[in-house]
Amino acid sequence: MNEYLKHDDWCIIEEGFNPDNQRSSESIFSIGNGHIGQRANFEEQYSGDSLSGNYIAGIYYPDKTKVGWWKNGYPEYFAKVLNAPNWIGINIKVGKIDLDLSKIKIENFRRVLNMKEGYLERSFIAEFPNENIIEIKSTRFISITENELGSIKYEIKSVNVNDKITITPYIDADIINEDANYQEKFWEEISIESKPGEAYVTVKTKKLDFHVCTSMKFNIEKNGSKINHNNKEKRKKKYIAQQVELDIKPDDTISIYKYSAITNSENHKKESLTIAAHNILQRSFEKGFEALLTEQANAWKCKWTDSDIIIEGDVAAQQAIRFNIFQLNQTYTGDDERLNIGPKGFTGEKYGGSTYWDTEAYCLPFYLRTSDKKASRKLLLYRYRHLTKAIENAEKLGFTNGAALYPMVTMNGEECHNEWEITFEEIHRNGAIAFAIYNYTRHTGDESYIEEYGLEVLIAISRFWAQRVNFSKEKNKYVILGVTGPNEYENNVNNNWYTNLMAKWCLEYTLKSIAKIQTKNPEQYIELKNKINFNELKEVGNWSNIVDNMYLPENEELGIFLQQEGYMDKDLLTVEDLRPEDRPINQKWSWDRILRSCFIKQADVLQGIYLFNENYNIDTIKRNFDFYEPKTVHESSLSPCVHTILAAKLGYKEQAYDLYLRTARLDIDDYNDEVDQGLHITSMAGTYLSIVEGFGGMSIKNEELHFAPFIPEQWKLFSFVVRYRESFLKIEVTKGKVTVLNQGRSSSQVFIRDVEYNIKERDSIEIYSN
Amino acid sequence: MNEYLKHDDWCIIEEGFNPDNQRSSESIFSIGNGHIGQRANFEEQYSGDSLSGNYIAGIYYPDKTKVGWWKNGYPEYFAKVLNAPNWIGINIKVGKIDLDLSKIKIENFRRVLNMKEGYLERSFIAEFPNENIIEIKSTRFISITENELGSIKYEIKSVNVNDKITITPYIDADIINEDANYQEKFWEEISIESKPGEAYVTVKTKKLDFHVCTSMKFNIEKNGSKINHNNKEKRKKKYIAQQVELDIKPDDTISIYKYSAITNSENHKKESLTIAAHNILQRSFEKGFEALLTEQANAWKCKWTDSDIIIEGDVAAQQAIRFNIFQLNQTYTGDDERLNIGPKGFTGEKYGGSTYWDTEAYCLPFYLRTSDKKASRKLLLYRYRHLTKAIENAEKLGFTNGAALYPMVTMNGEECHNEWEITFEEIHRNGAIAFAIYNYTRHTGDESYIEEYGLEVLIAISRFWAQRVNFSKEKNKYVILGVTGPNEYENNVNNNWYTNLMAKWCLEYTLKSIAKIQTKNPEQYIELKNKINFNELKEVGNWSNIVDNMYLPENEELGIFLQQEGYMDKDLLTVEDLRPEDRPINQKWSWDRILRSCFIKQADVLQGIYLFNENYNIDTIKRNFDFYEPKTVHESSLSPCVHTILAAKLGYKEQAYDLYLRTARLDIDDYNDEVDQGLHITSMAGTYLSIVEGFGGMSIKNEELHFAPFIPEQWKLFSFVVRYRESFLKIEVTKGKVTVLNQGRSSSQVFIRDVEYNIKERDSIEIYSN
Repeated sequence: MNEYLKHDDWCIIEEGFNPDNQRSSESIFSIGNGHIGQRANFEEQYSGDSLSGNYIAGIYYPDKTKVGWWKNGYPEYFAKVLNAPNWIGINIKVGKIDLDLSKIKIENFRRVLNMKEGYLERSFIAEFPNENIIEIKSTRFISITENELGSIKYEIKSVNVNDKITITPYIDADIINEDANYQEKFWEEISIESKPGEAYVTVKTKKLDFHVCTSMKFNIEKNGSKINHNNKEKRKKKYIAQQVELDIKPDDTISIYKYSAITNSENHKKESLTIAAHNILQRSFEKGFEALLTEQANAWKCKWTDSDIIIEGDVAAQQAIRFNIFQLNQTYTGDDERLNIGPKGFTGEKYGGSTYWDTEAYCLPFYLRTSDKKASRKLLLYRYRHLTKAIENAEKLGFTNGAALYPMVTMNGEECHNEWEITFEEIHRNGAIAFAIYNYTRHTGDESYIEEYGLEVLIAISRFWAQRVNFSKEKNKYVILGVTGPNEYENNVNNNWYTNLMAKWCLEYTLKSIAKIQTKNPEQYIELKNKINFNELKEVGNWSNIVDNMYLPENEELGIFLQQEGYMDKDLLTVEDLRPEDRPINQKWSWDRILRSCFIKQADVLQGIYLFNENYNIDTIKRNFDFYEPKTVHESSLSPCVHTILAAKLGYKEQAYDLYLRTARLDIDDYNDEVDQGLHITSMAGTYLSIVEGFGGMSIKNEELHFAPFIPEQWKLFSFVVRYRESFLKIEVTKGKVTVLNQGRSSSQVFIRDVEYNIKERDSIEIYSN
Repeated sequence: MNEYLKHDDWCIIEEGFNPDNQRSSESIFSIGNGHIGQRANFEEQYSGDSLSGNYIAGIYYPDKTKVGWWKNGYPEYFAKVLNAPNWIGINIKVGKIDLDLSKIKIENFRRVLNMKEGYLERSFIAEFPNENIIEIKSTRFISITENELGSIKYEIKSVNVNDKITITPYIDADIINEDANYQEKFWEEISIESKPGEAYVTVKTKKLDFHVCTSMKFNIEKNGSKINHNNKEKRKKKYIAQQVELDIKPDDTISIYKYSAITNSENHKKESLTIAAHNILQRSFEKGFEALLTEQANAWKCKWTDSDIIIEGDVAAQQAIRFNIFQLNQTYTGDDERLNIGPKGFTGEKYGGSTYWDTEAYCLPFYLRTSDKKASRKLLLYRYRHLTKAIENAEKLGFTNGAALYPMVTMNGEECHNEWEITFEEIHRNGAIAFAIYNYTRHTGDESYIEEYGLEVLIAISRFWAQRVNFSKEKNKYVILGVTGPNEYENNVNNNWYTNLMAKWCLEYTLKSIAKIQTKNPEQYIELKNKINFNELKEVGNWSNIVDNMYLPENEELGIFLQQEGYMDKDLLTVEDLRPEDRPINQKWSWDRILRSCFIKQADVLQGIYLFNENYNIDTIKRNFDFYEPKTVHESSLSPCVHTILAAKLGYKEQAYDLYLRTARLDIDDYNDEVDQGLHITSMAGTYLSIVEGFGGMSIKNEELHFAPFIPEQWKLFSFVVRYRESFLKIEVTKGKVTVLNQGRSSSQVFIRDVEYNIKERDSIEIYSN
C-alpha cells in the first residue's frame, strides 16, 4: 500500500516530489491512445531511479528465450514489447547547471493526470544551488484523434534568473529494454534527418525488421511571442538534438512546443516513414497545441459518454473507477484488428505487452458494453487471424487434424511463454477464446461473425479438446489429465472442474453452432467443411459422445464442484489461518508449498459458475462460494471481480464492497507494491464488471438483459451506461430507486429484478424499492 | 547407436580416425584417478570439433542461475564442475606445418584404453602435404598412486622427414566451460613461474577463491638418449609454453616425457601450491615414466582383484562390464569424504559434476561390495557433513525444527538445481540417503556409523517427513501431496507410492534405530537428544502415528501398488504401442504429453519393490513387474538395472539378459546418442548390480548373504567377487555349476538358492544343478 495520491473526481494528483514514488507515478500517470503509450517520465533529464518507457503498438522484439531447463515444445523466443525511441526529451540548462529533479531543490511539485480531457500536466519550482529560481509547467498528451502524434507544451518561467538558458529538444533511439534477457540493445539506426526545428530518427529492430521513425518539430515562444533562435545540432549514434540558447530575465516565460510524430512500418511503407511523419508534424504544427488539446478534450468527452461510471458520495471510488475506464480506453480503441490488450497495456515492460486470455475473459465484456460492436469484433478477428499459428502450435505438441491450441502469451499468434505448467497445460485459454465468440454473439446479436469466422475457430478448438481428453476405463468417463486451471496455484492436476467444463461447453457450443449454420447457410457451411476437411459424421459423433460423458468432479457430501481431483486430501484451512507474515504467499512460500496448500490464487470453480451462472441455482452458487471464497488469497488481480459479482448475487453486500475495493484502487494505492512495473490494465476491466455485473447485477439470460442493482452503503448514487444489441441504456441507482434511461434509437426491453419493462427511446423508467 | 569400437577383453580400441566420433571417443577413453580426470583430448593441437575437458575433484564454480521464471526457494547459483587448465598440451610442428589431425592426412590411427593397467595409448601415421611422414605414439595416464600427477610419453618417429621439428609443451589456463550460463570465463591468473623444462601456472576461480597450480616438467630423448635443447619461452595471459626446435632425419625417434602435477587449495595451503607441485614433479621425474607406469599397473591389479567380473564366451559383455568397473574405480576411490560421484564423473561438464541420489541408490552398493568399508563410510560422511546445509535448505522451503531436505543436486551441500518439480518435489532423495545408512550398516555390520553420525541424519530426515505429510480427513490417512518420484515423467503428483513408502520406512527405521541406541549407548543418545532438541515423547509418538496410518495407494483389482493416485485414469498403453518415430519420447514429445501418458521413465514402484524385496512375495513382485515393465521406456540410464534384477528373480531370463545389454554397452555403443557429453558413470554401478544381484542373485535377508545364480544362455562362465561383513567371496557360475571360493581370513556362511553353506577360509564349495 502506498497512498500518496490525492482524491479527486476527475484527476489523479500527486503533490510534492518523492523520488521513491517516481517509478510508480511513471506508471500511474501514463498516457496513451491505443497506438502509442508513454510512461510519465520527465521531459528534462533525470538522473534518479526511473523506468523509461514508451511503446508502440504492434512493434515487438523476439528476445532469445532464457530458460534453465529446456522442454520440447518451448518457443525459441519471448516477444517483448519494445521500449521505443524517446520523443519527449527536452533538456534544460540554466546558466551552467542542468535541470535535474534528482539534483536540484524542488518545491510545489504537482503532477496531474486529467482524465476528463486526456492530458498530463506537471509543474514545480526549481531552486538551483546558485539561488536561481525557475517555475516549470509541462503539459503533454498523446492524441486520440491523430494516432501517431504526441505533443508537449513546456513552459519555463524565470522567477529571478538573469542568465542564459539552454533548451535541448531531442530524439533518442539509443535506448534499452530493462528486461532484455541478454542485455542486448534491440534498435539499429537507419537514418537521421534534420533541419532547424525539425528532426527525424529512423531505426529498425535487429530482428523482424520493424522500422520506426520518431520525429520532432518544435517552436519556442518568449512571453507569448514566437522568437527566432539558433539551433545547434548535436548528433550521436541513434540520437539527435537541437540546442537553443536564450537569455532570460526575471518574469520572462519561455514556452517550448514540441510535436512528435511516430510512424512505423506496420502502418506505412518503410520508405515513406519520414514523409508520413513530416505530414503529421506539418498538420499539427499548423493547428497548434491549444487547438489539438481542444480536439483531445472533445474526443475524450465522447469516450466518457459511452463508458463513464458515476459514483456519488465516495470520491475515492469515483476516482478509481474513472481511472480504470480511462486506462482501458487509452489501451485499446478497437480500430485495428492486429492490436490487442497487454496486461500492462503501454505502461511497462512486464508481460512483454503480449496478449493473454485476459482479453477474452475480462476485457471483451467491457468493450462490448461501452463501444460499438466493431471494437469487440476486432478482438475476435485478432484470434481468427492467428488460427493458423494456433494450429501449428498444437501440432508442435503432438495434436493433429487441424486442432488448435491458442498460445498463453502471444504477440503474433506464436506462443512465447515457457513454463511447461502454463505454456502446455493452462489450456483453458482455448475455452475463453470460444466463449468470447459466444459472448459477442449473444451480446450484439450479430451472427455474421460466427458464420464468417467464428465457426472455423470453434471447430479447431473442439478438435483440440477431442484429442486432449482421454477415456478413463476406471471412471467410464472422459477425463482431462495434466492441466493448470485459472487457479495457477495448482499445476499439472487431473480433471480441473473448470477446464473440463469449458471443454465440454466448447464442444456443445460448436455442435449447436454447426447445426445452426448448416440450416441457415448450408453453402457457407459446406465451403468451410471442405476447407478444413471436417469429417462431420465421425467428429460430430465423437464430440457428442465426449459431451455426454465428460467427467466433472464433485463432492456430493458438501454439494460442491471439486476444483480438481484430490483437492479434498489437502489440509483444508482458510485464509484467516494464515499468519500476516506469510502473505502474499507467492512472495513468502516456496512453490511446492503453495501447490500442496489449499490456497487458491483465483477460484476457478467460481469463475466457471460466474460464466454460466444462469445454469446454477442460488443454493449451488452459495455452497461453492462459501467453500472456495475463504480459501482464496486473490493473488491474481483478476480474482476479486468474479467474487464481487457472485457475492453481490448472493446478497453478501459488505463482502462484495470489500472485494470491489481491492480491485478499484489496486494501482492508485499500489496494494501489491508493484505498480512501478506498470498498471494492471486487464484487471481494470474486472473492476468495471464488478460495478456493472456486481452492484448493477447485469446479466444476460435467454438473450434478455437483466439488472438486479443494489447500492453499497457507502455510496449515494451510482450510474453506468450499457450497450446491449440495439439498446443503449443508462442505469442510475440510488438508495431506494433505480432509474433506467433509454438513450438509444429504439425502444428497449429490460428486466429489473426479474420484472420486465419496455422503455421507449429517450424515455426512462423509475423503480422504487425499500 | 554407434558401434565403432573393437571388442576386446581388457581394452577399448578405436581404429581409424573419424572426426565425427571425436567427442564420443574423448568421453569413452577418459582417464582419471578419483581426484583428477581427463577426457581423451589430443596432446597436439586439434582444430576439429572437440570438447576439451579436464576436471579436478572438489573444484567448482557457482555459475549464476539461468532460469526463465523465478520461484521462491530457487538457488541463486548452479555449481559447475570446472574445466581446469590444460596440462596435456604438446604442440608439434614439422618444418613449417602444424600437426593437426583435422588438417593432415592420417593413417593407421589407433586409440587404446588399457583398462587392465590404467593407461591411454594413441598412435598414427601423419602425412603432411609436402609428403613428410611421421609416426606418432602417445601414452598417458593419471596416477592412482600419486593423486596429483598425470604423465605423458609422446613419441615422434621420422619416416622420411629431414627437417626441423618444433615441439611445444605448454600449460594453458585460459580456458572456458562450454556450458557456462553467461559465457563467462571462470579462471583468473595468479602467477606463472618457469625455468627451462619446467613451468607453473597458478590460477584462481573468480568466485569461491579456489586456487589451482598446474605444472609441467619435461625432458626430451632422441633415439633413446637424453638430449640438451634450448627452450624458447612463450607467455600469454594464463598461458606458458616452452618451444624446443630440433633437427630430425629419417628413422630418428624423438620422445617427449611430460609430467604434470596439479595441486589445489583444497589439499594444500594456497601459498604452497607451487612448491607442492614442484615436489611431485621432482619425485616423478626421478622415478621416470616407465617406473611410474609399472606402479600404475600394479595398483590397478589390486583394484581388479577386488572388483573384476569375468565373463567367458561373450567378449562384448566382458569388455563392457570391465569398462563399467574401470570407470567407477577411476571416479571414486573412497579416500576423501569431501568427494563424491557425479553422474558423468570426470568425463564431461553435464550435470555439473555434482552429487545426485544416484550415489546412495546405485553407487554405494558397488563400493560396499568391492572396497574396504572405509570407502563407503566416506560416502555416508559426505552427507553427514552436509546436514547443516540440508536443514537450511528445508528452512528455505518453510520447514522447521531441524528438518532436513538434502539437495537434489549439490557440490557443497547447497541445492543447485532449479526446476520446481525436481528441486522442491523430488523429495524421495531423502529416503535414499536414509536407506544408504541402513544398507551400509546391514552390509558391513558396522554399527558405529549410525551411532556416531547416522542417527542425527535419520532424525533430521524423519522430521522432514513428519512435516511433509498431511492428514487427509477424506482418506483418514496421512498423505504426501505434490511430489515427483524417481519416475520423473510424472510431476507434482499426489501419493506417489514409492515416496510414501520411503517416508514410512524412514520413520520406522529411525524409530528402531533410536530404540536400539537408547539401550546400547544411552549416554551418546542423550547427548544427541540435547544437541538437536529432540522432543522424544512428542516426535516419537507423532512418527509412530504416521507410520501406522500412511496411505500407500494400491489397485486391489489388479493386485498392484499404484504408482500414484490417478494413474489408472490414463490411457494405459504399452511401449509396444509406441511408433518408433516417437522414441525416445523425451526427445520427441512435449512435456505435457509425456506427463499425461502412462509411460514411465523408470518404474518407481519396481524401485521400491527392489529395495525391500524381502517384504514381497514372488506373486506380488510378478503382478507389479508385469504391469509396470511394459509401460517403462527406460529413458533413464538408471532404469534397466532394477528391471534386470527383478526379471532375474522372476525367472524371466531372456528379458533379464536383454535389459542387461541395454545398460552394459550404453556408452561404448552410444545407445542414446549422447556419449559425446560424457559417460553415464553412476548408471555403471547399476550394470554391476545387474550381474551381481541379477544373474548372481545376491541379496541380504535377515542379515544373511544369499545367492541364486543363473547364467545367461549366451555365456560360458561368469564370476564376481563380493565383500560382505568379514567375508570376501568369489562366485563363479557356469552352466550347471556354482563355485564359491572363500578368499577371506575366516570361515563364511552363505546361502545358495536358500541352502546354507559354511565355507572355511581359502576353501571353496561347488554346487551342481541341472
